[in-house]
Amino acid sequence: MLSDCVRMDSYSNAVFENKHHFEGKAVLDVGKGSGILAIWSAQAGARKVYAVDATKMVEHASELVKAISVQDIFEVIEGSMEDVTFPEKVFDVIISEWMGYFLLCESMFDSVICACECWLKPSGVMYPSHARMWMAPGRSGLVDQKKSDYEDAMNDCRQILKFIESYYGVDIRVLTNPFAKEQRKYYLNVDIAVEQPSNPNQVKGTPVIIKEIDCSTGTINGIIVYFNSSISSSITAENTRHCRFAGWFDVHFRGSHENRAPQEIELTTAPNEDFGTHWGQQVFLLHPPVRAHQEDNLILNFSLTRSKENHRNGTSVVYEQVLLRMNLDPDIFPVPAKMGKFSSPCLCRLVPRGFNGATRTVWKKVPRFAMQSM
Amino acid sequence: MLSDCVRMDSYSNAVFENKHHFEGKAVLDVGKGSGILAIWSAQAGARKVYAVDATKMVEHASELVKAISVQDIFEVIEGSMEDVTFPEKVFDVIISEWMGYFLLCESMFDSVICACECWLKPSGVMYPSHARMWMAPGRSGLVDQKKSDYEDAMNDCRQILKFIESYYGVDIRVLTNPFAKEQRKYYLNVDIAVEQPSNPNQVKGTPVIIKEIDCSTGTINGIIVYFNSSISSSITAENTRHCRFAGWFDVHFRGSHENRAPQEIELTTAPNEDFGTHWGQQVFLLHPPVRAHQEDNLILNFSLTRSKENHRNGTSVVYEQVLLRMNLDPDIFPVPAKMGKFSSPCLCRLVPRGFNGATRTVWKKVPRFAMQSM
Repeated sequence: MLSDCVRMDSYSNAVFENKHHFEGKAVLDVGKGSGILAIWSAQAGARKVYAVDATKMVEHASELVKAISVQDIFEVIEGSMEDVTFPEKVFDVIISEWMGYFLLCESMFDSVICACECWLKPSGVMYPSHARMWMAPGRSGLVDQKKSDYEDAMNDCRQILKFIESYYGVDIRVLTNPFAKEQRKYYLNVDIAVEQPSNPNQVKGTPVIIKEIDCSTGTINGIIVYFNSSISSSITAENTRHCRFAGWFDVHFRGSHENRAPQEIELTTAPNEDFGTHWGQQVFLLHPPVRAHQEDNLILNFSLTRSKENHRNGTSVVYEQVLLRMNLDPDIFPVPAKMGKFSSPCLCRLVPRGFNGATRTVWKKVPRFAMQSM
Repeated sequence: MLSDCVRMDSYSNAVFENKHHFEGKAVLDVGKGSGILAIWSAQAGARKVYAVDATKMVEHASELVKAISVQDIFEVIEGSMEDVTFPEKVFDVIISEWMGYFLLCESMFDSVICACECWLKPSGVMYPSHARMWMAPGRSGLVDQKKSDYEDAMNDCRQILKFIESYYGVDIRVLTNPFAKEQRKYYLNVDIAVEQPSNPNQVKGTPVIIKEIDCSTGTINGIIVYFNSSISSSITAENTRHCRFAGWFDVHFRGSHENRAPQEIELTTAPNEDFGTHWGQQVFLLHPPVRAHQEDNLILNFSLTRSKENHRNGTSVVYEQVLLRMNLDPDIFPVPAKMGKFSSPCLCRLVPRGFNGATRTVWKKVPRFAMQSM
């Protein structure tokens, strides 16, 4: 967290511009990390701050507490949110930097929901209080790069098979097709990547919200295991080659219904050349790209499923893997094998400008997405 | 396999220079892959060749069989070696390219052992018949590169903590030590890598065999789950900075006791600038390096343990992960957490030239090795 200025500033502003939420209050910091959120809560006037962390960072907590002179206020507990108990019966504030890539992937959302259900006062406040997931179509140089890598691999393959024929006298060129299939999967269908630094100019359609979450109404039974969203994005550039969908998120610090934050703070991971975050954007590449025109509508059905193997006892601590699908239509596309962090077939429909009935519908297939660089 | 000429030539020579092992015989190819071993077996005169493969390559087998006109000889069976059955009661030859990185890692050794125990004639022949694992001390530029990466990370850390102090007024420099510990693990202790192209000049001590395997005496109960080896390597260069141990393997095609191969073929993955293989060498880095002199003896206790999680039902098909330890002495070194493919503390003792009793003993600690680029 420490090296991401956007993230640091958002949390710092949220706490210090809404000090009255913290003054004299009991605060719970879920997933302590460096401890900076707990320290700020204490500096903003909290009566008591408990920081819960399952990692080894806890070992250094006592030194940290001494170093910043908040021994009386600050207490660190090692353990998972599901197991710990506190002398406090309830908390006024739950603060956490729980967000993962594309909000949920490798996030600690389950722990925050658990903390909210078990330990937040009815009038208590979540920091952050709300989250949104976004998507937008656009362009990306990655598509051409991957295509070129695929072509290089196929050229190598042909040369090797030719060499085997001439040197060993065995003609196994029949393996070209299965090799091509394998390479297409690797280069063209492994399609989700974090792009950073992100450039807003790459977005060529209206960004659309695919999911909104009110963190303060979370319950363990309400853990996200699946959601489906149908979105329509209007193309904003003339005659553009659409190569990708970019996904990102934002979170808001709004307080609660009874206890609104006078200074609402937003932390966004939207494409931003100057103020990008370490989260970057998740990029889902289209092979081949779609050519579209200004005011065309790009319609996308999108669904996200948590992978079962990381759903520990119904109350998983961390969203380590999120399975992401886009309009899985088994009649048109076979169900893909899971690969990497994401696995997804994509079906998006292009509705041209002035479309008022039937005709031109372009179906794009992106059979598999897999999270890279995570 | 197809693009590795050393590998291709070794198998091709082994089969065609020992044709009498194949003529009129029943051959079992474990882990078909491209099918080239089964094809060569058929071309060498085999009466029948069964190729067993658990992967999707099997789907293309019928096309391949047609393309190379060996329909009557060649049969492909999809499944794991532990489950399949054959019309043949026993086989005269079991051929397989089963070797993984550093011989056992990600190898199909279990499947080959299973095939040998269940399906090989008492007078039958394994191709390859023997395997050896080697280690040798030497130098490597990787050590300095990793040291430099670590120093860069620590400089970044110090700058961030300084910025936080000046900008947010919070002094959390006490976190420098835990961060340094984490970074040391990442940069200095994640220490096993494949080096390629490999350079024999980097070897600066006598290579030593740490394990020999007779493939034809394998039984399921004899699957390697652990072995320990104490080796002594004599330094061959004056005043050298020893930065690594390199590990590699070779396999031999010798036939069997009753049925020797007149042309014994060796496939080696030893450092070789011109004829390196895709396996490269596994490099275990020493931090800090040891300075040694010609004829010094470097004594190393080495142990290798198969990781439990990949030991499926007692008859794992693939050595996906191999845990590697070097002289784990809990009094001197804490037991390391497992990380990556390998995890290993290393304790090696340097015995100087002319050493004849007590005195100068240098203990080097390499707390963790983890396989990279695999």
